[in-house]
Amino acid sequence: MRLLLINPNTTVSMTEKAAIAARAVAGPGTEIIAATSQMGPASIEGYYDGAIAVPGMLRELKERQVEGYDAAIICCFDDTGLEAARMFCDVPVVGLCEAAVATAGFLAQRFSVVTTLERSRILIDNLVHRYGMGARAKVRASDIPVLELEDSSSSAIGKLRAEIERALAEDGAEAIVLGCAGMTDLARQLQSIYGIPVVDGVAAAVKQAEALVSLGLSTSKRSSYASPLPKSFSGAMQDFAPAAASA
Amino acid sequence: MRLLLINPNTTVSMTEKAAIAARAVAGPGTEIIAATSQMGPASIEGYYDGAIAVPGMLRELKERQVEGYDAAIICCFDDTGLEAARMFCDVPVVGLCEAAVATAGFLAQRFSVVTTLERSRILIDNLVHRYGMGARAKVRASDIPVLELEDSSSSAIGKLRAEIERALAEDGAEAIVLGCAGMTDLARQLQSIYGIPVVDGVAAAVKQAEALVSLGLSTSKRSSYASPLPKSFSGAMQDFAPAAASA
Amino acid sequence: MRLLLINPNTTVSMTEKAAIAARAVAGPGTEIIAATSQMGPASIEGYYDGAIAVPGMLRELKERQVEGYDAAIICCFDDTGLEAARMFCDVPVVGLCEAAVATAGFLAQRFSVVTTLERSRILIDNLVHRYGMGARAKVRASDIPVLELEDSSSSAIGKLRAEIERALAEDGAEAIVLGCAGMTDLARQLQSIYGIPVVDGVAAAVKQAEALVSLGLSTSKRSSYASPLPKSFSGAMQDFAPAAASA
Amino acid sequence: MRLLLINPNTTVSMTEKAAIAARAVAGPGTEIIAATSQMGPASIEGYYDGAIAVPGMLRELKERQVEGYDAAIICCFDDTGLEAARMFCDVPVVGLCEAAVATAGFLAQRFSVVTTLERSRILIDNLVHRYGMGARAKVRASDIPVLELEDSSSSAIGKLRAEIERALAEDGAEAIVLGCAGMTDLARQLQSIYGIPVVDGVAAAVKQAEALVSLGLSTSKRSSYASPLPKSFSGAMQDFAPAAASA
Amino acid sequence: MRLLLINPNTTVSMTEKAAIAARAVAGPGTEIIAATSQMGPASIEGYYDGAIAVPGMLRELKERQVEGYDAAIICCFDDTGLEAARMFCDVPVVGLCEAAVATAGFLAQRFSVVTTLERSRILIDNLVHRYGMGARAKVRASDIPVLELEDSSSSAIGKLRAEIERALAEDGAEAIVLGCAGMTDLARQLQSIYGIPVVDGVAAAVKQAEALVSLGLSTSKRSSYASPLPKSFSGAMQDFAPAAASA
Amino acid sequence: MRLLLINPNTTVSMTEKAAIAARAVAGPGTEIIAATSQMGPASIEGYYDGAIAVPGMLRELKERQVEGYDAAIICCFDDTGLEAARMFCDVPVVGLCEAAVATAGFLAQRFSVVTTLERSRILIDNLVHRYGMGARAKVRASDIPVLELEDSSSSAIGKLRAEIERALAEDGAEAIVLGCAGMTDLARQLQSIYGIPVVDGVAAAVKQAEALVSLGLSTSKRSSYASPLPKSFSGAMQDFAPAAASA
Repeated sequence: MRLLLINPNTTVSMTEKAAIAARAVAGPGTEIIAATSQMGPASIEGYYDGAIAVPGMLRELKERQVEGYDAAIICCFDDTGLEAARMFCDVPVVGLCEAAVATAGFLAQRFSVVTTLERSRILIDNLVHRYGMGARAKVRASDIPVLELEDSSSSAIGKLRAEIERALAEDGAEAIVLGCAGMTDLARQLQSIYGIPVVDGVAAAVKQAEALVSLGLSTSKRSSYASPLPKSFSGAMQDFAPAAASA
Repeated sequence: MRLLLINPNTTVSMTEKAAIAARAVAGPGTEIIAATSQMGPASIEGYYDGAIAVPGMLRELKERQVEGYDAAIICCFDDTGLEAARMFCDVPVVGLCEAAVATAGFLAQRFSVVTTLERSRILIDNLVHRYGMGARAKVRASDIPVLELEDSSSSAIGKLRAEIERALAEDGAEAIVLGCAGMTDLARQLQSIYGIPVVDGVAAAVKQAEALVSLGLSTSKRSSYASPLPKSFSGAMQDFAPAAASA
Repeated sequence: MRLLLINPNTTVSMTEKAAIAARAVAGPGTEIIAATSQMGPASIEGYYDGAIAVPGMLRELKERQVEGYDAAIICCFDDTGLEAARMFCDVPVVGLCEAAVATAGFLAQRFSVVTTLERSRILIDNLVHRYGMGARAKVRASDIPVLELEDSSSSAIGKLRAEIERALAEDGAEAIVLGCAGMTDLARQLQSIYGIPVVDGVAAAVKQAEALVSLGLSTSKRSSYASPLPKSFSGAMQDFAPAAASA
Repeated sequence: MRLLLINPNTTVSMTEKAAIAARAVAGPGTEIIAATSQMGPASIEGYYDGAIAVPGMLRELKERQVEGYDAAIICCFDDTGLEAARMFCDVPVVGLCEAAVATAGFLAQRFSVVTTLERSRILIDNLVHRYGMGARAKVRASDIPVLELEDSSSSAIGKLRAEIERALAEDGAEAIVLGCAGMTDLARQLQSIYGIPVVDGVAAAVKQAEALVSLGLSTSKRSSYASPLPKSFSGAMQDFAPAAASA
Repeated sequence: MRLLLINPNTTVSMTEKAAIAARAVAGPGTEIIAATSQMGPASIEGYYDGAIAVPGMLRELKERQVEGYDAAIICCFDDTGLEAARMFCDVPVVGLCEAAVATAGFLAQRFSVVTTLERSRILIDNLVHRYGMGARAKVRASDIPVLELEDSSSSAIGKLRAEIERALAEDGAEAIVLGCAGMTDLARQLQSIYGIPVVDGVAAAVKQAEALVSLGLSTSKRSSYASPLPKSFSGAMQDFAPAAASA
Repeated sequence: MRLLLINPNTTVSMTEKAAIAARAVAGPGTEIIAATSQMGPASIEGYYDGAIAVPGMLRELKERQVEGYDAAIICCFDDTGLEAARMFCDVPVVGLCEAAVATAGFLAQRFSVVTTLERSRILIDNLVHRYGMGARAKVRASDIPVLELEDSSSSAIGKLRAEIERALAEDGAEAIVLGCAGMTDLARQLQSIYGIPVVDGVAAAVKQAEALVSLGLSTSKRSSYASPLPKSFSGAMQDFAPAAASA
């Protein structure tokens, strides 16, 4: 089984860190193919960055079809372009936020998601509501810029721990979800410090993608995720036009 | 007051039809500047088309800043890229769906939105829930491809009327919202046929944009719509990088 | 266009203050007709006051029909008698709370409403939920009696600012809605102090009423807002009996 | 124990029918005092009628304080003026809709409310949501004018049975709530025909009022139901001004 | 009327305390039959205890059928086995939590439930949501083990008061619901201290059970509470097999 | 990795069918240990059967601890005793309904669950709401007694197909979840007939259990799933008393 781990931002070090986390939990027959978007922002902090990142991610999804993959994982906790990718791909596509909160739901009745900047907090809160966990999960920001997570000398871990401790004290959280792909390397350590489940989206998404492939399940093509209709695309986007096909 | 009416798809005839509708309701001091995206799909039918359309729309929003505008209207009922545009712009940005359902809320306690294809139905239903009208509104598809609305000889009006009649019979709808920018020219006629309010998103959005400008209100830059942070953008997207500025 | 601004309490100074606010934002062709209820409480603080205020407001709506108006605005943040007025009138009727929260929805994903007394807080919270903004807005009381807002020497502004600051610190509010008609003169000042959108219901309602009239839209008479059925009314209320008519 | 059964419309025959139903279920020590509003509409069909009915009902609640009562029941399924009455009274006040749906909740997980006219359906649906039963109950209209229920030769029972049968077939209803005070005499008969619980609001409210009195519980005067504040009331409403007192 | 008060835990002193509370509010013709489960845990603190308690409670419900009862009350605030009991019994069955929150709903728009241990808090919060009061009620734990309530020298009352005071200060609670059967003797005292309604589940359930019996209403046997189907039961549970009957 | 597949009903043929389904999807290093409860009902149809089944299931969970298992799967779509099992076990426990709807959520925005009898429909609908999928999923009954699924000559498949076709026509379902463990052998066939994802709970639960074990995640012992407190258990249940331990 080949899983494409596609980082929708263009920071290769973040892709590599995520790939390590993915390979650490992948099953024996699973190959992780790590890919980094070639066009777009260096990190995704809020809606604007996310919107500009999507075409680069979709292009990568398309180009990687030549070598083939059995499922794709969008390696950003905002689930950047997830719905578009599901329409585009014939194989399952999994987002980190969706996978992480579904996983946390098997472990706890109430949990808190700790993300980076305040500007991402409501975006993720909206996702959590759409995924059906709004009544069970609270989303918090820890005031860490995304790229600061790439710098091991930063104060990021301290800020993250402080926010987790507030979640335990104030939210009655039974588990923690780390709300950024760049936090993937911290999950085990934090779980051991706090003695409650700490869910990392990268690892969770790998297992969900493996599950869907093993089960022979893929995105429904009835209604909202139907394949894009053939039509003309203009300007710099013309090569995104879908070939006449499915429906 | 100058309102930028930006069509995120590249079909100029649709922009022109919307501009006529916008000018028909604009206040005496309001100038409607109609703009069409230069890159992306010819129509927006589902998430994939929408995602590819956003950069072209954002580029147009940027280029039009030279001549200036007081508010922008995104002329697609999917509210394509609305959040990204709100981060990008310092002036108010209004979406058709958001404006139309807010307007319908002043007229009726329960209403139905009639859109084009089944693939857009759930997308719009999700928007309607997020805008807080999920308990008051039902979304229906009428099986009309978007560009068929540009062809006056098509059977589109018949399909639309059939779906409105089902909404009246089955949903207890007290008003109808037309769920596609391309239906803008049909609102008055349908209102007169059915004797209940028929809300068109283009017209509704013009009045909401005028209202915000008149009231001296613009998008909050605290938290979710804060201006994009300066950072590097790669490849074909590099000119989307925000200049170092706000926060 | 003639808009009837009807104050459902009997305090003329409050009507006058609201009329100033309304005229300050009204469009060039809009005439604001300010009216004060002739019977009922001097201020509306909770359900009891509101219930007694409604007949006086409806009588004023009726008597003003002689000179005519194109839409009515109920000038109390409790949206006193809004549904009854919508059944009674053939023209659009707009409430302050409904207009203000709809307007805030275009500016922010999360916001706080700051009202006067604790006894009005839950009443307004219920309205906010019914208007679909329950998941996006928090309602707070600032412990200011309504008529204290008419006294410029009072400590009202201080209490209001303290509560706004709590909303910013504790709710993650991105915008503020002023939850009383008597606060209308404070909106611009507070917006400039806090640098986030501050929405006043009087001004918001004027623009929504203008919008509906411009768009040729009025209250649906199908189902919940159908015109009152002719029937006998007894005692002091007999002149409220609707003439045999509509449906 | 003395329970005041106050009919907020002015139709004495309806009060009498409700009093019979109330006495049929009242406990041994309970006296039912039936009262009819002296001013307002002959029946309550929609928001306008309801709003005009409230002052007459509140006046009756006040005048009956001379002889005294231990709790009050507002004898209309719209729960006309319930919140205002709760502020006014120092004793518990119970509404028919609130009592009926709470009672149905002990008997069934899903149920349907069958009311009279379409114009009351959404009003009651909003109540049902506010009382927390929105996810468990569906509201239906049977197209019966309220006063037709006073005419035993009418086709009302046939229309009501047809609607109940639709609720059983289409809603998966496990119980039925009769959504009008005027249907009180039909509950037992319909229960015996359909073999499922049929809840009448008049009877349900009597038992809830008795329960509250027996338990020594009355309306909280903290926050939303605090006693009306003393203030001036003008014109025909001046005698509704509360005496300086409580808080 | 004979009401069976069945304690699903095996602590007789708790049954006796509840029986005193029940008899104190029972109507003149009501006999309270107090029963204690013969098998299961000494107290119910969380899901595991509750699950093991159910068969003992159902056995008691069955054995008491010989002498007969008109309704049953499950005397634990977790509403232990309530749905199973409703399927099993032909008479109404009432739970403490369900009765208490329904009763509080007639007295206050917002209230707080104060229960014992943190491990029961989310369990009860889930019940409160299912009963439709999730938007109106907050659930709090006071860190009191259930059996500590049986020891009058314990610090339980102090912890309970501290938590009630937090509910008043932080939740805007208008009433308090005591979230454990073992707190039944404290309700009147706490109500007098705090001057707001304090609802005890045991007392509330007695009145609801009396109400249902008086009204001739019993659990719907259509759909979710249909009588158990006859089938074989194995091992130690074989005597729980329902006789061939109903449907 | 050893997964305990525990059937909470006592029908061995159903355990065996589920074990075949489980082994068909289990990863290379996963051993499926199939266990059948030794006491309780032959099938679980509604709350009563479920309540009686839990102790037998918990006993089996305990006895199997001797040989050891890394996670447990409760093999009934009602998620019988899931919360109790999570408190009892130190390893992850997964329910079929919870696993199936989480899995469907990665494949479709809207889906329908088709279960057996009407008496299980609302029970499952309540679960689906609690798991956060209430706004995305509709639950349907196909009128098939559970044990009829064990009889290959029955009309079960025909009834199931008819109900799936209604879901496609009326619900706009994009995927189907089979709502009974006994349907596990039909999933692939139905998926191939209808061309949309058909999710089987047994298979879905195996992959979720494998995922949790691989990720080093187990049930949070903070708050609602804390280990049972040591206390005395009486009568036939005395061996269910937890040893003095955890917390």
